[in-house]
Parts: sequence; C-alpha cells; structure tokens
Amino acid sequence: MIRFNNDYNHGAHNAIIQAIGEINTESYAGYGEDEWCQKGADEIRKYLGGADVDIHFMVGGTPANITVMTAALRPYESVICAENGHINHHEAGSIEHTGHKILSVPAKEGKLTAEAVRETAAHYYDHGQVEFLTAPKIVFLSSPSEYGTIYSKKELLEIRKVCDQYNMYLYVDGARLGYWLSCSACDVTLEDLARIADVFYIGGTKCGALFGEALVIVNKNLRDHFRTYMKQSGGILAKGWLLGVQFYTLFKDGLYFELTKHADDLAAKLKQGFADASIPLYMDSPTNQLFVILTNEKADELAEEFTYEFDHVVDEERICVRFCTSWSSTEEEVDKLIAAL
Amino acid sequence: MIRFNNDYNHGAHNAIIQAIGEINTESYAGYGEDEWCQKGADEIRKYLGGADVDIHFMVGGTPANITVMTAALRPYESVICAENGHINHHEAGSIEHTGHKILSVPAKEGKLTAEAVRETAAHYYDHGQVEFLTAPKIVFLSSPSEYGTIYSKKELLEIRKVCDQYNMYLYVDGARLGYWLSCSACDVTLEDLARIADVFYIGGTKCGALFGEALVIVNKNLRDHFRTYMKQSGGILAKGWLLGVQFYTLFKDGLYFELTKHADDLAAKLKQGFADASIPLYMDSPTNQLFVILTNEKADELAEEFTYEFDHVVDEERICVRFCTSWSSTEEEVDKLIAAL
Amino acid sequence: MIRFNNDYNHGAHNAIIQAIGEINTESYAGYGEDEWCQKGADEIRKYLGGADVDIHFMVGGTPANITVMTAALRPYESVICAENGHINHHEAGSIEHTGHKILSVPAKEGKLTAEAVRETAAHYYDHGQVEFLTAPKIVFLSSPSEYGTIYSKKELLEIRKVCDQYNMYLYVDGARLGYWLSCSACDVTLEDLARIADVFYIGGTKCGALFGEALVIVNKNLRDHFRTYMKQSGGILAKGWLLGVQFYTLFKDGLYFELTKHADDLAAKLKQGFADASIPLYMDSPTNQLFVILTNEKADELAEEFTYEFDHVVDEERICVRFCTSWSSTEEEVDKLIAAL
Amino acid sequence: MIRFNNDYNHGAHNAIIQAIGEINTESYAGYGEDEWCQKGADEIRKYLGGADVDIHFMVGGTPANITVMTAALRPYESVICAENGHINHHEAGSIEHTGHKILSVPAKEGKLTAEAVRETAAHYYDHGQVEFLTAPKIVFLSSPSEYGTIYSKKELLEIRKVCDQYNMYLYVDGARLGYWLSCSACDVTLEDLARIADVFYIGGTKCGALFGEALVIVNKNLRDHFRTYMKQSGGILAKGWLLGVQFYTLFKDGLYFELTKHADDLAAKLKQGFADASIPLYMDSPTNQLFVILTNEKADELAEEFTYEFDHVVDEERICVRFCTSWSSTEEEVDKLIAAL
Repeated sequence: MIRFNNDYNHGAHNAIIQAIGEINTESYAGYGEDEWCQKGADEIRKYLGGADVDIHFMVGGTPANITVMTAALRPYESVICAENGHINHHEAGSIEHTGHKILSVPAKEGKLTAEAVRETAAHYYDHGQVEFLTAPKIVFLSSPSEYGTIYSKKELLEIRKVCDQYNMYLYVDGARLGYWLSCSACDVTLEDLARIADVFYIGGTKCGALFGEALVIVNKNLRDHFRTYMKQSGGILAKGWLLGVQFYTLFKDGLYFELTKHADDLAAKLKQGFADASIPLYMDSPTNQLFVILTNEKADELAEEFTYEFDHVVDEERICVRFCTSWSSTEEEVDKLIAAL
Repeated sequence: MIRFNNDYNHGAHNAIIQAIGEINTESYAGYGEDEWCQKGADEIRKYLGGADVDIHFMVGGTPANITVMTAALRPYESVICAENGHINHHEAGSIEHTGHKILSVPAKEGKLTAEAVRETAAHYYDHGQVEFLTAPKIVFLSSPSEYGTIYSKKELLEIRKVCDQYNMYLYVDGARLGYWLSCSACDVTLEDLARIADVFYIGGTKCGALFGEALVIVNKNLRDHFRTYMKQSGGILAKGWLLGVQFYTLFKDGLYFELTKHADDLAAKLKQGFADASIPLYMDSPTNQLFVILTNEKADELAEEFTYEFDHVVDEERICVRFCTSWSSTEEEVDKLIAAL
Repeated sequence: MIRFNNDYNHGAHNAIIQAIGEINTESYAGYGEDEWCQKGADEIRKYLGGADVDIHFMVGGTPANITVMTAALRPYESVICAENGHINHHEAGSIEHTGHKILSVPAKEGKLTAEAVRETAAHYYDHGQVEFLTAPKIVFLSSPSEYGTIYSKKELLEIRKVCDQYNMYLYVDGARLGYWLSCSACDVTLEDLARIADVFYIGGTKCGALFGEALVIVNKNLRDHFRTYMKQSGGILAKGWLLGVQFYTLFKDGLYFELTKHADDLAAKLKQGFADASIPLYMDSPTNQLFVILTNEKADELAEEFTYEFDHVVDEERICVRFCTSWSSTEEEVDKLIAAL
Repeated sequence: MIRFNNDYNHGAHNAIIQAIGEINTESYAGYGEDEWCQKGADEIRKYLGGADVDIHFMVGGTPANITVMTAALRPYESVICAENGHINHHEAGSIEHTGHKILSVPAKEGKLTAEAVRETAAHYYDHGQVEFLTAPKIVFLSSPSEYGTIYSKKELLEIRKVCDQYNMYLYVDGARLGYWLSCSACDVTLEDLARIADVFYIGGTKCGALFGEALVIVNKNLRDHFRTYMKQSGGILAKGWLLGVQFYTLFKDGLYFELTKHADDLAAKLKQGFADASIPLYMDSPTNQLFVILTNEKADELAEEFTYEFDHVVDEERICVRFCTSWSSTEEEVDKLIAAL
C-alpha cells in the first residue's frame, strides 16, 4: 500500500534520526532550557530578518493553538476563522474548551478574506451596542489552507491592515508552512511572515521532523508567562532538546525547504497526471495537497493500491478525495499512482 | 417617552408586588427550599398534565442557559442552535465560556428546522470519521424566536423526532413563553411542551414577574446535582421564595396567560396599524415582537415620542427596528403609536 | 419557629418594598443603565470620600465573586484565601470552575493574616523557580469573616502593604459588610475601604435588601469590559433598577447602617445571654453571627422553638452551632431565646 | 558536569533509538491507530494478568492528567490529592484550569493515607448538607511519591477500599512507575495495579523512553470518547507509532524493568554513600530519588561537579536537595559522587 492519505505517515528525514541518535548519550537541562533549543531557535532566526521574536518548541499543532489562544485572549474575546478552518471542526472543540468563541466566516478558495474579517470586526468595533457580544481579537488562518491553497503577500497584508485597524492579532497556523514557502506560486518568505503576523508556527510534524512545531511569537504582548501557559496546557516537552535538535537540523542548511520543495514538485507532477487522466480538481492547489473528484469506481480501484483521504460525497457517482505528497514521497510512488490513473 | 423597545422595561404586575409585600414579614428557609417554591412549582405542575418534572426557579435566562448546558453536556459535546439564536450572539460567549461549542445552523423565519438539525446531527452520528469532531447533544431553540415567530406543534414534533433518533436533548428557551402560548396562532400547550422537550423554562422576567424564570426539567438524566450546578454557576437565589411566590401568583389563576394575551392582542392591533400605514413588516410575527422597516425619516420622527430597538440597516434610506408590546403596555400607548404612524 | 439560622430568612425592610412598589408603574432602560442605578451609586459614592470608582449592582455574592475573578485573573493566576473562606468550600467549586486555583492559607480567628499572605506571595514572587506554579494575584477576604470576626484597619493596611509589595489585588467580600461597619468594635469606614481595597462589594441580600449586592471597583485595571463579564457570567439583571432603587433607599438616609446596627446590638445582647447561661462561645465575635458550643441536649431542646445552623461536632456530647441575628430580628425574639437558654 | 538533578536529562535507551530508526522508512496510519501502538499495548497487557483494559499512548504526564480529569469528572466533582502532590503545585494550575477543585490532604512520608482520603470523602458523602460543596470523585496518587517513597500493596488496598465505599476512582500517576516496581521494597506488581486502580499510567519519559506515557484505563466508565478528549486536550500524537514502538521495545523483553532496577540499585549504593559520609536523609526512599540535607558549604562544593535539585531551605546553614539516579546513570558517575561526599 502506498500512502498518499496525509503528510505525517512517515517518521522523519534520516538526518533527524541521526541527529537525535548522536546526542543521545548527552545530558541536558529540561523543559526547553537546553542548548539545542537555543541553537534551533538561532537557525530559525536567521530566516527572520533580524526580527525580535520568542521561539518555543511545542509538541504539536493543537497544543500550539490551545496555548496561544489561552495566552492571547481575555474571556470575552473571540477568534475569527474561516468556516472550513480545522480549529472550527477537527480539533474536538479545543478552542471552545478554553472558553473562547470562534466566529466562523465564509471562506474563498478555502481561505479567509480581508473583506470577511473586516465585516466581522466592524460589526463589533464600529457598532455602538456590542456590550453583550464577544470581541473578535485573534484572526486565525492556515497557510496552506485545508484545501492546499495559499495566501499571497497581498492577501496577508490586507488582512494585516484590518488587524491593525481593529487592534487584533494575526495568528498563522503553519502546520504545512514549508509546503507553502517552497511552492512556485508563493511570494511570501519567513521574513515577511515575521513582519506581518503577530504569532505563527513552523510545522515540523508534517514537514520532515519526527514531531514538533516551532512557535514564533513576534508581538511582545503575547510573550508574558508563555512557558507557564505551555505547562498548564500540557504542551511543553520535558526533553525539549529533542525538538530543538530537530529544528536545528532542518534549518541549519535549508533541509526544511528542500524537503517541502520535493513534495511540492511531486504534487505538481501528480496534478499534471490528474489532468492527463481527465480527473477534475475540486480546487486548484499549488502545494502538496490535491483535492480531486473521482468516480466511485475509480476510487475503489485506486484504493486497492493507494491510500487517499475521503473528503466528501459529490453525488451518487462521485466523491471528492485528497491526495497528499510529502517530504517522504518518492518519484517512483507518484509515477505508480499516475500510471494507475 | 413611551417604551416599545423591549418587554422588560416595567417592574411587575401589581399582584406580584402585592404578594411579595404580603409575605415580607415572614421568614423562610433559604435557597429555594421554602414553601413558596413548593407552591409555585405545584401551580405550574397543574399545567403539565401530570408530567414528572423537577422545577427550579432561577434568577434569569442566561444563568438558566449556562446551568443547563453545564449540567447536560460532557466536554466534547456541543449545542445545535439557529444562526440568529441569542446564545450564539448576545450572551457574550457565555456558552463557549462553559467550554462548549455552538453549532449554528441556518434559520427559517428565525427558527430552527428539523432538516437543519437532522443534517448537523447526521453529519456527526451517521459518519465514520468523527472522533475529532464535537458531538451535537443539545438542540436549543427559543419560542417565540428572536423574531417573534413561533413553532407549531408539528415543527416541534419533527425536531423531537430527530432528537430521539440521535439521542439528543431538546431545550426550549421560553424567555417569552407566555407570548407564544397566548397568541392566537399557537397550537401548543404547556402540557405538550412537557411531553416534547427534555427541559424548558417559563420566562417570568419578560412576562409579568419582577424577575426570575421557572426551569422545568423533564428528562431524568438532567436532574442530578442540578442545585449544585445552580450554586456553582451563581444562578441560585438565597431568598428563593421571592421567585416561588411570583410564579405562584402568576399561575394560580392563570394571570400569566392573561398578561401575555393582553400583549399579544395589542401587538395584533399594532400590526394592523403598521399595515394601515403601509409600513412593511420585516418578518410576520403572531406574538408581541414586531419587526418593521422604517424610513430613516420616519424612524427619527417616531423616536421623539417612542422607544424601539434598532435591529439592522436595510439600505441607505431604511432601517429595520423592533417594536415590543408587553404585559405592561396599555391600549392607549398603542393607540398613540398608531396615530403617530 | 423563630429563625436565627441565618440573616437572609426575611424579605426586605419595608422601605425597600415600598420603594419598589412606588416605581413599579414607571418604565426604564435595561441592564443597569437606568436612573435608579445612577442614583443608588451616587448615594453610595457619598460614603466613599470622593474616590473614583465604578459601581455595578449584581444579583448575588457568588455571581459577584465569579465575575470579579474572571475579569481580574489571567489563566495562570490564583487567589489567596483563608482556609475556612466560603469560596474555598461552600460555593461548589465556583472559582475553580472559572479555571483558577485557590491557594488556601491558615486562618487566625477566622481571618486571613498579613503574615500568611506574605508567605504565600513570597513563595512565588521571591523565588527563582516558579515558572510552573500559579501566580497569586488576588487576595480574597470576607469581613465579617465566616466566624463573624472583623478586620481592624491595621490588619487591612498590613495586608494592603503585602498586596502592594507583590502587585496583587485586594478583594473584600462584604456580604455582611453592614454588620461589620456598624459594630462597636469596628474602626474602619467605607471611605477607608475605598482607599484600601481594589474591589469590594456592599452586601444587600443579608443587610436589609430583598436581594442584590453593590460591587465597588476602585482599581482602574479591573474595570475594562466589566459589564460584558457580568453578562457572560449571568450575573447582570435585566431590570437593573430593581437593584439600584434598593441601594438608593438603603443609603440615602443611612438606613443600611441603622438596620445592621440593630442586628449587632441584638447580637451583643444575645452574647451576654450566652455568658449568663454559661454557654461558651466557640469564637468571640462583635457582629451578628455568634458561634457557641451547645450540649446535644440543649441543642435539641432549643431546636424545638428556634432555628440555628449546625457548624461542626465538638465531641460526643457537644456541637458548635451558629446563631445569627439580622436586620429583621426583633428584641422580643432575642429575649425569648435568652429566656430559653 | 554530572547530572543527578532529575531522571529526564538523557534521551532514550539505545534500543529505543534503534527501534525508531528501524521503522523510519515505513508508513503508518495516524493518531495511534497503527500496528506499533497495537503491539506496544499487547506487550503491556502481558503484565496485566488478563485484565480488560484500554491503553492509550500519550505525549506526557501533564496531558495524561489533564485528559483523565476532563474525561472522568463532572463539573461539580473534585480530586483528592496529597498536599505535596505535583498536580497541586507544579503543573501551573492545570487541573483547576480544567475547572476542577483539588482537595489537598496532609501527606505522610510524602504519601496519601487511607485515613485522610476517608475523612475527606466522609465529610462529603456522610454528611447531609453538602449540596454546595464539591464532590470528591478521583483519588490521585503518585507512586513513587514526590519524595521517592512508595505505596505498599496494603496501603493501596486500603485506599481502594475507601474508593469503593464512596464510589470514587483511584488514579495512579506512574511517571516513575518503573522505579517503584523494580525496587527491592516493592510488593506490588503491574497485575496488582490493574486490579486495584481504575486508571494509571506507565511512565516512559523518565524510565528509558525518549518521551511518552502509556495510560491504562481499567474502569469501563472512563473509556467513553477518550480519544476525543485526547484530541481536545492536545495530548494525542499524530505519529502515534513513535510512542507504540517505544513501549513495545521497553516491554517485549522486560527492558523497562532492567533499566529502572539499574537506577534503583545505583540509588541504594548512593544512599549508603550518604550514610557513610554522615549526610542525613530528609526522607528515606527505596527508589531513585534521594532527598538529603546538605550544609550550604557542601552544597556549593558539590555543585561544581554535579547537578542536583534544590528542594527547600532547612535553616540558615542547611538546605534539602534531591539527587536522582536514572536509567542512564552509570556506576562510575555514582562512584564519583560518593567520592566527592
């Protein structure tokens, strides 16, 4: 079985495994106060254009989201998020479990629009009778989005402008950040992101690491007691250096971007394969996730040799599914899939 | 200034004031364990066709909602509610503050539909990959709705059927229950409600009482430790008899329904007045809330003598506003308003 | 049966009932934005020596406590409270339900001591390794305490000093504030309190009002969005003027203090009665709550005619119980009790 | 610098690193639904005497605690825990952050006693006026305790008896479980634990694994939707097999117990060293944590070559510190420390 169902079905790039092995006999201070967390953060900072940031290594994306929301929001404040945003559905109500409302807004190509954010913010901030409403305070977006689409620098700057206007935070969930920054359609850099977002995370789990995400806090207002929040939410790792050394390895020579570019390139090849086989895309994506519409027959046939992820039923005869390439996909696997199309 | 902006701008019907005054020199046990709470509950029970219920008197609607949600839901469970439902907007995120997600669904004439409830429930319960979604467990509806529209018995029974199918609770917020049950279009009785809903409350604050709501818990699963939840949420009154005696007074001779019928009748008269003045309704309502579309000019003119509640901007020249009659409105006040139209 | 079990077993002083009756035909703006809330606050302000404060009228003490904690604390912050403090036991975990830890410290004569507060605060603030501890941020005390004892100005100032040293808030729960300020042993005034505390509430429910408490917020940091917190927590009353007019009535001519002085005087008389009957006090109190040790026999005998509140078992032959006088107790009732001793 | 400050300052036993490396090129299903989680659980089950249990692999101890509390408790229920329990201090209020009160009780030799548990439970369950108290529902204990002391089978059974009497859950935090079960003073087995506890976890992080804990749920009432709770709390790992393969490796040939026995033996040797050097123990412990009292001078001297963990100040001239051996400690390191004493 060849897995295209997601981008976290393999362990880690071999360099990661090796790096962890190499330092395994050494001993370190706990909870992220070790030299590898320092070194990992330093390597990331080289990409941030000198921005003054705090960097915390976290166990996963959900803990990162929970902890940021808890730290950033007062109890009456809420989160603006695209209707299809994963925190709005697939994290088991984790944001509401922290006590905060999600204000979901219509998405366009799977993405939040500055217009929708402005409208929601204006409804609260430009209106006189809002005392009993929640105050939108964080704008949450994922890039690539749940449908693999990406934000242009222009789109980000427009959203930033709304955030500035209404004094809201912009939080970018970068679980698949590498696949965004490496794809040919991307006009955004990490340096841009550190200028535009208040806080974002660089996904490791789905981009070549064994596990872990690097949270980058730009806005000084979000830094206070952050490690306490991490502990309280259970998102801090006792052996923090396991995360630090992974990000050090991924960023010291640009391995992170090599790996994600590899996946993006394979996805582009696969997209051409779908086109050649006249299999329609559900939504066009320049990154490693491709949503296509398969006949039930074709879906069953492919399922014998390949895994993909079911997304939704289109009609009685067709379904929409996701194929993911990843840093661990091989050209041979993609070729086999294309041949089977 | 004559107030039509809401139905809680007066104290209480005189009989309430008198009743409180009459027992003012007596002493009672605290926290609802007094004879008036008992007697108030007994009077309400006479309307419930012998249903076996727990009745708790609560300080207000928001505490009632908070407490029911806290008592009824496990942390991963969520609430289905019409998009325009007040708990979804105007209670400052109080439901999410208890940790629970609201799954808002499109409303029809301001109301929840069985179809929308079924679709949302089915998405979770009839689907295999829902482990990381929240489980819809309470169906919340207000009757009259936020737009004054009401549920027919048929509509309620259809929603009940979906609740039964998916083992969900049906909670009816009856802040304006009297205005529903007294209006000519209503085909539902309190007895029906005690058969159809798992829990509902009979609004006092907006229907002739000084303050307070009577929560009726039908489903036995929702009764455990309810008084503890009331205390924890701050929704229990030390001098519970103040609530008990009010509901005793309202229900012992049917005063509750007299008062709300009076308001519904005045609203019907006012609706005719709007029609005669060619002022269009935003949505037709058989109860005490009327939403109409006024020109800005007319709105300003009326505002000199009458209060109404702004709802939304229709276009540059018109706004939608709410006029409320109440148990305390007089025919004279309504006539003055009609004359001014 | 003559009730001495608590101080909330009667409705309200007659002037309150009358005042509510008199304005019952008038109409008002909702949620505390009416003239009576304004006037009630103004009367209270006259006692505060010109302090710049926000005053909110709340439905009860538990909602007041919940709302203040929610508004004042970040998720990692905690509350210092005497071991026997009611929020630590008798509010069903309401503070923890808002997500905050209570750091309980040993009490002396039922009261918090500056030493205990300092020790707890120092453990956190003067120590290097506290990242994973909660940060004490509110010092909570009740005066009179749960045992009827009171804080002297000196004691309050000492606690204030610790609060200043560690940048903590001082919150005084004044459910029985009147009984404190009116008793002969008291050397504190409302004006002092407005200088010493960051936030406190003036209890109405137990001191002559029908229900309701007046929350006085002195510290500007605690004011932001407070009405939103009140709504979210369910502690705001739709017909706010019902609370405003009560506090107006209680404070405009000093009725509040008359009523509580009356109860304190009766308690002093009753205390002498206990002494004369050689019934030992469990703890000496200058206010309206008296804790005495009764033989089981005497307890049973008294229970035939009087209610009191059981506190704890002393040994096989004796129990400790509370007798409360209140604004509604009469000299005749106290005389009867003394005669029965 | 030789680290004796804790037992999580090294990566993992080499067999773990190797096992992860060996399966690194394979692909797996996500979120714990892979074959290694199955195999890891199967190996653990071999030690449980055929008990019917659910086993979940979690990222760390704090997430395990948070998730169990969230899943097990209704909002009005609380946790009994020894005063010095780490959840009561060193987890940043994480339990209260889930909304639940901790009822801390005096510890004896760092341990919970059946007497203290009984007294706290009886105060609630055997008393008539508890409606506004929280209901103790989980008894939480760590073995080894925070001071390295261990529970005998008799002690556990006594606590179990109280749990049965009052229908409470017994939760054993086994962050250092191996060091307990391997020490010579231990008369408890994993099989016993699966009979006595309702839920417990087998610590990996501190006992030879890279990271992760195996949560064993015995009581069927605690199993419902547990994976949803894990997701909601952020404690589930996308690449679950990383945890499964570690526990498979640790348990398939008893490596887990070899490693912890090694540490216990070294601790015993070190304890003798302290005795020989006339350095008093603060508390006697049969496991890998030793608390001793050092003069400030000695402490400074040792700090030049060894790390230890500061516990508390004894007096002006002495402090209490913790020395930890671990699976990664070597005899040579211990000999060096003994020589330096």
